[in-house]
Amino acid sequence: MSATGRPELPGGDFGLLSPVWAGSRAESLTGDTALVRSMVAAEAALIRALIQVGLAPTSAEEVAAQVEAALIEPAHSIDPAQLALEAVAGGNPVIPLVERLRESAGVGDETRWIHFGATSQDIVDTALMLVATDVLEVVLEDLEAIVGRLTGLAVRYRDFPVVARTLGQQALPTTLGLRVAGWLTGTRDAVQSIQALLPLPASLGGPVGTAQVYGADGPLVLDAFASRLGLSAPTLSWHTRRGPVLGLANALVAVGAAVGKIAADVLVMSQTEIGEVREATGGTSSSMAHKSNPTRSVLIASAARQLPALGAIIGASAVAEQERPAGAWHAEWQPLRDMLRLAGGATALARDLIDGLVFDQEALARNLDLLRSTLGGSETWTTPHLKPAAVWVDRALKSDRGPASDPDRGEAGR
Amino acid sequence: MSATGRPELPGGDFGLLSPVWAGSRAESLTGDTALVRSMVAAEAALIRALIQVGLAPTSAEEVAAQVEAALIEPAHSIDPAQLALEAVAGGNPVIPLVERLRESAGVGDETRWIHFGATSQDIVDTALMLVATDVLEVVLEDLEAIVGRLTGLAVRYRDFPVVARTLGQQALPTTLGLRVAGWLTGTRDAVQSIQALLPLPASLGGPVGTAQVYGADGPLVLDAFASRLGLSAPTLSWHTRRGPVLGLANALVAVGAAVGKIAADVLVMSQTEIGEVREATGGTSSSMAHKSNPTRSVLIASAARQLPALGAIIGASAVAEQERPAGAWHAEWQPLRDMLRLAGGATALARDLIDGLVFDQEALARNLDLLRSTLGGSETWTTPHLKPAAVWVDRALKSDRGPASDPDRGEAGR
Amino acid sequence: MSATGRPELPGGDFGLLSPVWAGSRAESLTGDTALVRSMVAAEAALIRALIQVGLAPTSAEEVAAQVEAALIEPAHSIDPAQLALEAVAGGNPVIPLVERLRESAGVGDETRWIHFGATSQDIVDTALMLVATDVLEVVLEDLEAIVGRLTGLAVRYRDFPVVARTLGQQALPTTLGLRVAGWLTGTRDAVQSIQALLPLPASLGGPVGTAQVYGADGPLVLDAFASRLGLSAPTLSWHTRRGPVLGLANALVAVGAAVGKIAADVLVMSQTEIGEVREATGGTSSSMAHKSNPTRSVLIASAARQLPALGAIIGASAVAEQERPAGAWHAEWQPLRDMLRLAGGATALARDLIDGLVFDQEALARNLDLLRSTLGGSETWTTPHLKPAAVWVDRALKSDRGPASDPDRGEAGR
Amino acid sequence: MSATGRPELPGGDFGLLSPVWAGSRAESLTGDTALVRSMVAAEAALIRALIQVGLAPTSAEEVAAQVEAALIEPAHSIDPAQLALEAVAGGNPVIPLVERLRESAGVGDETRWIHFGATSQDIVDTALMLVATDVLEVVLEDLEAIVGRLTGLAVRYRDFPVVARTLGQQALPTTLGLRVAGWLTGTRDAVQSIQALLPLPASLGGPVGTAQVYGADGPLVLDAFASRLGLSAPTLSWHTRRGPVLGLANALVAVGAAVGKIAADVLVMSQTEIGEVREATGGTSSSMAHKSNPTRSVLIASAARQLPALGAIIGASAVAEQERPAGAWHAEWQPLRDMLRLAGGATALARDLIDGLVFDQEALARNLDLLRSTLGGSETWTTPHLKPAAVWVDRALKSDRGPASDPDRGEAGR
Repeated sequence: MSATGRPELPGGDFGLLSPVWAGSRAESLTGDTALVRSMVAAEAALIRALIQVGLAPTSAEEVAAQVEAALIEPAHSIDPAQLALEAVAGGNPVIPLVERLRESAGVGDETRWIHFGATSQDIVDTALMLVATDVLEVVLEDLEAIVGRLTGLAVRYRDFPVVARTLGQQALPTTLGLRVAGWLTGTRDAVQSIQALLPLPASLGGPVGTAQVYGADGPLVLDAFASRLGLSAPTLSWHTRRGPVLGLANALVAVGAAVGKIAADVLVMSQTEIGEVREATGGTSSSMAHKSNPTRSVLIASAARQLPALGAIIGASAVAEQERPAGAWHAEWQPLRDMLRLAGGATALARDLIDGLVFDQEALARNLDLLRSTLGGSETWTTPHLKPAAVWVDRALKSDRGPASDPDRGEAGR
Repeated sequence: MSATGRPELPGGDFGLLSPVWAGSRAESLTGDTALVRSMVAAEAALIRALIQVGLAPTSAEEVAAQVEAALIEPAHSIDPAQLALEAVAGGNPVIPLVERLRESAGVGDETRWIHFGATSQDIVDTALMLVATDVLEVVLEDLEAIVGRLTGLAVRYRDFPVVARTLGQQALPTTLGLRVAGWLTGTRDAVQSIQALLPLPASLGGPVGTAQVYGADGPLVLDAFASRLGLSAPTLSWHTRRGPVLGLANALVAVGAAVGKIAADVLVMSQTEIGEVREATGGTSSSMAHKSNPTRSVLIASAARQLPALGAIIGASAVAEQERPAGAWHAEWQPLRDMLRLAGGATALARDLIDGLVFDQEALARNLDLLRSTLGGSETWTTPHLKPAAVWVDRALKSDRGPASDPDRGEAGR
Repeated sequence: MSATGRPELPGGDFGLLSPVWAGSRAESLTGDTALVRSMVAAEAALIRALIQVGLAPTSAEEVAAQVEAALIEPAHSIDPAQLALEAVAGGNPVIPLVERLRESAGVGDETRWIHFGATSQDIVDTALMLVATDVLEVVLEDLEAIVGRLTGLAVRYRDFPVVARTLGQQALPTTLGLRVAGWLTGTRDAVQSIQALLPLPASLGGPVGTAQVYGADGPLVLDAFASRLGLSAPTLSWHTRRGPVLGLANALVAVGAAVGKIAADVLVMSQTEIGEVREATGGTSSSMAHKSNPTRSVLIASAARQLPALGAIIGASAVAEQERPAGAWHAEWQPLRDMLRLAGGATALARDLIDGLVFDQEALARNLDLLRSTLGGSETWTTPHLKPAAVWVDRALKSDRGPASDPDRGEAGR
Repeated sequence: MSATGRPELPGGDFGLLSPVWAGSRAESLTGDTALVRSMVAAEAALIRALIQVGLAPTSAEEVAAQVEAALIEPAHSIDPAQLALEAVAGGNPVIPLVERLRESAGVGDETRWIHFGATSQDIVDTALMLVATDVLEVVLEDLEAIVGRLTGLAVRYRDFPVVARTLGQQALPTTLGLRVAGWLTGTRDAVQSIQALLPLPASLGGPVGTAQVYGADGPLVLDAFASRLGLSAPTLSWHTRRGPVLGLANALVAVGAAVGKIAADVLVMSQTEIGEVREATGGTSSSMAHKSNPTRSVLIASAARQLPALGAIIGASAVAEQERPAGAWHAEWQPLRDMLRLAGGATALARDLIDGLVFDQEALARNLDLLRSTLGGSETWTTPHLKPAAVWVDRALKSDRGPASDPDRGEAGR
C-alpha cells in the first residue's frame, strides 16, 4: 500500500465538523472503538455458538473467554487507529483483528475456533447491526420522549389559533395544536419505521454464503449466534441481498425527515420578522452580540440534508454481484455509520429543542391580525371557528394505537 | 411566464431515452394522460363523497356525472400537453384542470361542488397515489411471476454445483440453486415491501390541512373520498408529512435492488469468458453482427442505477416547512413518476429475463474445473459435499410464509 | 421483450408534472423529436465526412441527401414513439433508426455508408451533445439577459439599505445592491462554467474506440464529422471516459445553483411577514382567492432541488468498465435530458422572475427599522455608513472582464 | 444541548471503516487536528493582514505571534475533541476557538484584533480551502506520477493486441496501449480539472458579506489575507455563492471517476476466468487462503461509489438563502472533508495499483484466441492490422500540451 505509516498530524475525526452529533450518545456508540468492540463481541459469540451446537469442543470455552476479555480488560484493548492502518492491505479490519485475537489467545490449537467458518463480511455486517441496534435504541428513547412532549403540546394548543402558511405566504388560520399534531404523527411514523426493523439480523454465511464448514448445521449455528447477540437469524446469507441495510438506511432517512420537519417549521417561525417561536437558549454568534441563533434547528436541518444522499449510496450498493461484490459492500460502511450518527445526533437535538421551545404569544397574535386584515376581516377566530382543526388534533391523539390498529396504514416511512 | 407557446419541435417524451420502460405497462400507467385521468377521478370522487356525507345536495350528482364523463368519453378528454402549458402560471396542473371541468360541466351553481374544499395538492397527491397503486399492482404481478419461476429454478438446481465468486475471484463451490434462492428471497422481500404500503393514502386536507369548509365533518369526507378511490384514509393531512411518498420511494428502490441483483449476476455470468448463462434472445449490435448482448440485464441495471438518487430527491423533499412548502413538494412529482416507470419497466424486463434464461452446463462445469484445480483437487463435488448449500435452499423455500411468520424479520427493504 | 405493444392509455410525457420546463424552449429542444433529428443529423454528417475524407465515393452523396431529407420533409419523419418501442430489443434507439434510414434510402449498395464504422454509442452521444449545445445556447442567452438586468439593479440599489439576514435572523444592514451583486456574480460564474464547455465533443470511436474500419484515417474522419456538426473533436473515444458528460452535468448544477440562489432569496423576502419583494404576477391558488404565490421562485427551487441528485447519477456512471459498459451508459441518457430541461426551464423562469421583480420600499424600510431598534438605535443608515457594501458592489461590477483577467479565479462552478 | 459530556466509549473515527484512506496523506491532512491548525492559521493571517493594511497597530504583532504559537508549540495545542464538544452550542467550532485564542493570548486590549471583523464562516471556509489545497497538492502529485507511469505503458503496449469488451462481451480487438491511453487521458483530464481550481479562494466577508468594520478597506484586507495564505481573493463574499465548494466537489468527483475507471477495468480483467491482470500483491482473505483479492481496485471502487452522492449534498447546499443560510452551509462541511479523503486515498491507491500492475501475457493471448475463433478465424492480429488503435495512442500521447493547445476542449470534468 502507498502509506508507509501515519504522517505527522494525527488524523482522527472527533466531530469537529459535525456539531450535530459531536458529544452525542450516537457518536460514542458509533466510534471506531465501538466498532472494534462489536466485532470482538461477534467473534466471541461465534465460538460460544459453535460450542452450543456441538461443532466446537467445550475446551474452546477458554478461547471464547479470552476473546471476551478484549471487551472488558483495558489491557486487552485493541487500538482502533492501529487496526485501521492494518486493515488497508486486506481491505477490511477483520483480517488484522482475527490475527490479534489469535495472538492474544495463545498458541494452542483451540485458537482455530476463532472466526471458524466465518468470513470478514459476517463479522463486519454483524458488528454494524449491533452498533445500529444500540443507536436505534437511543433514537427510539429520544423519539418517544418527543412523542410525549408533543402530545402535551398538541392537547394544550388544540384550539390556539395561528397563521397557516403555504409557499411562504400567509394562507388561512389553523391551530398551533394541529401543526404540532403533524409533528407528532410524523414522529410516531418514524418510531414505527424503526420498530419494524428490530431485531436486526446477524450475518453468518461463511465465505460464499453456504456456511460450508458447518455442514448441515449452518442454520443451527446461525440461530445460536444471532440469539446470543440479540439479533434475528435471516433466512439466507445477506452478503449480496442488502435488504437489512437498505431498510436501516430508509428508517434513518425517515427519522431525519421527522425531526427535520420540526426544525424546518421552527426555522420559519423563528425568523426575526415572524418571531413566533424561539429556542430555549439561542446560539451565540462569533461576530454579532445581539443575535440569538436557532442553532439546534440549523444543526438538525444540516443532518436532514445529508441523510437522503447517504441513503442513495446504500441504495446503489444494494445491487451486489455474485456472492460478495467488488466495491459495493465496502462503500456501505462509512455512509451507514454517518447516517446512524446524523440521525442519532439530530434526534437528541430535536428532543432538546422541543423541551425548550418558547412560543411568543404576542407575535403569534400579531401575525394572525395581519392575516385577518387580508382575509377581510372583522372575523374573530374563536373555538367554534377552529373546530375543524381541533377535530384533526383529536384524531391524531386517538390514533396512537400502534401499527396493528393504525388507520394510517401505508404511511410510515417504511 | 417566459413561454409564449410551444415552439416548433414537439416536446413529448415517449421513452426514446428510456428503453427500460418504453412500451411497458408502467409507461402507459404513468403517462400524462393517466395522470389527468387520475386527477379527474379524484375530483369526481370528491363530489360523490360530499353527497354521501350530506355536505352537498343530491342535485350535485349531475355535476359528478359530468366530471366522470371526462374519464370515459373521448369527446370530453383533456389534452395533457395543453394542460401542461396552462399549469405553468399557477405552478400546478389542478388549477387549469378545475377550470376545464367547471366549464364543461356547465354554468349552473352546482359546479361549485367541483374541487369543493380541496386544494391542488390534495388532487395531485391523490392522483399520484392512484397512479402508484396501478403501477404497484403490475409490479406485484410481475414479481410474483418471478417468485414462481425462481422457486422452480431453486428446486431444480438445489444440488447443482457452480463456482461462487467473491470480489470477482473464484472462491469456493456453491450450488446454482442457492444463488437462485438468494434472488428468490430478495424478490420476496420486495413483494413484502410493496404489500406493506398498500393501500396507499388519499389526501384531502384542504388549503392548510384543516379541511376547513367541511367543519367537523372533515374526517368523514376524507374517509368517504378515500374509500371510493380504493385508498386508505390517513390520520392527518400529509401535505408536509411525506411518509407515504418516502415509503413508496423506498419500496421502489428495494424493487430495483431485487431485480438489479439478478441482472448483476447475469451480467457477470454472461461475460464471454465466463459464459455460464445467456438471455433467451440476445440484443443485436448496430455494428457487430457476431455479438449477442445481455440487453435486458443492461437495461435493468440502468434502472437500478437511477432509482436510489431519485429516491434521494424524494427523501430531501420530505422536509417540508409549514402547511405547504415552497419547492419541496413540486420537486417530488417527476422523480416519483420516473421511479414508478423505472421500477415497473425493470421488473417487467426481469420477468422476461428469467423466463428465458439459458444456462450453459458446459461452461458451468468448465469454470468449476478451474476452481477445483486451484483448490488442489482431485475433489469431486457430489451431492453430499454440497449438502450445506442445499440446506439453505430448503430453508429459503420453506420460509415463504408471509410477513407474519417470517423468521426473516427486519429484512425486507422497508 | 415483455411488452406486446403500447397499452390502451398513451404514455407521453408533455411536462404535466414539470411546470418548470413545460412549454419552454428547453422542452422543445430536448423532446424525443429533437433527439431523433439530432441522431439523423449525426448519421448524415458521418456520410458527408466519409466522402470528404475520401473513404466513401462521391456517389454516396445521394444517400447522404436522402438521410438529410428525414430532417426536413414531414413525409420522411420518423415517429419517435414508434422508434422508442423498437429500441427496447437492442437497448438503444440507433439500431432501429439505422434500419429505417437504410429502408427509406433505398436498396442500393450505397446504403452501406449509412452508419459506416460507427457504433450506436457514437450516434447517441453525439446527438446528446447536439441537443445539449442547443439548450446551452438558450441558457446562455437567458443568463446573459439576467446579467444585464442584474447589473442595472446592482447599480441602482448600490447604496439602498436593507436588512441582511443570517440563519433566518436579522443580522446587520447591507445594501440591496450588494445582495443583487451576489446574484450577478453567481450568474456570471454560471455563464463561464458553460462557456468553458463549448464546443462539446462529437463521438466517433466505432464499436470499441479504435474506429477500426477507417484504418489510419480515424482521426481525419472524426475531425471532419465533428466540424460539420459544430462540435469539437476529442483526443480519444470517450465511450468510457465520461468527462464531457460529467462536465456538462456539473455546469447544469451550477446553473441551477445560480438561479436557485436568486429564487431562494425571493422566497425569503416575499414571505407575507417580510414582504420585501413580490413577483410581477403572482400565481393563483386553486382554493384561496386572496393568495398571490411566488410561483416562478417555487418552480425554480423545484428544479434546483432535482439537479444535484441527477448529477450524482451521471457522476456514478462516469466509472465505466472496458470499452463500453453494461448499464452505466444507459443510465446517463434520461438524467442528462432531465438536467438540460430543468436547467433550461429554471433559467427561463429566472429571467422572467427578475424582469418583473417588484420591491416594496415600505416593507424594506419597516424591516430595517426593526433591525435598527434591535441594534440599539438612533442610528440612521446613510450613504457614508453603507460605504463598505458599496465598495463590494463596485468591485463586482468592475470584475466583468471574462475569465482571463478575472480576479475571481477558482470560483466558477467548474 | 442534550449531551452532558462524552459518554464512556471514545468516539473518534480513525478510518476503521474507510480503508481507502486510512493511513493516507489525505487522512492526516483532513483530520480534526489539521482543521484546527488551518483555522488558527486563518486567524493569525487575519491579524497580520490588518496590521499590513494599517487597520491594526503594529502593537498587535505580539498577539499575532501568540496565535501563531498555537501552530507550533505543543503546549499551546488545542484538543480538537474538546473543541468539537464546545462547538455544539453555537453550531460551529470557531466560537470556542476564538475564546481559546483570546484566553491564551492574554487579557490585554490587543486581543480584540483576534477575529476582528470576521465571522465564523470566514474562518471555517478559509480553513477548509487551506485543507483542500493541501490535499489537492498531494492528489496532483499522485496523479502526475500516474500520468508518467501510464505514458510508459501506453508506449510499451501501443501495438499489443487484446480483447476489447462491450456490455461484458468480447467485441473486437484493440491494443492494450489504447486502453491505457484512455486511462491516461482521463487522468490528465482530472489533473486539469484540479489545476483550473487553484488557487482556491479565501473568505473574509464579515458577518453579512460587507466586511463592515473595515470600512472601504474591505477588499484590501481580503487581498492581504488571501495572499498571506496562498489563496486567491474572490470578487465578493461567497458565503452564499458556493461556486468554489461546488467546483471543488466536481473536481473530486472527476478524480474519483478517473481512478475509478482504471479500477473498474482492473476488476474486469482480474476476474479469475479472464485473468489478464493482477495487482502486485493480492489482498488476503480472512477465510480462503488460496485467494488473492484485487484489494486496491475494490477500495478505489468503493471511493468512486461514494463521491457523486456526497457531491450531490454539496450541490444542494449551493442554494443558500440571504447572507448566510440556516442549514445548507453546515451540511457541507463533513461531506467536503469526506470527499477530500476519498479522492485523496483513492488516488494514492491508484498510483500504487498502477505501479504494481502485472499483465498475464498468456491469459491475454488465450482470450484473444477465443475472440478470433468467434470472429471466424484464421486472422492473425499483426501490427498493420492494429494500426487504427495505434493511431489513437499516438494522438493521446501527443495531446499532452496543456489546456491552451488541447484539441480536447470541453472534455475535462470541469
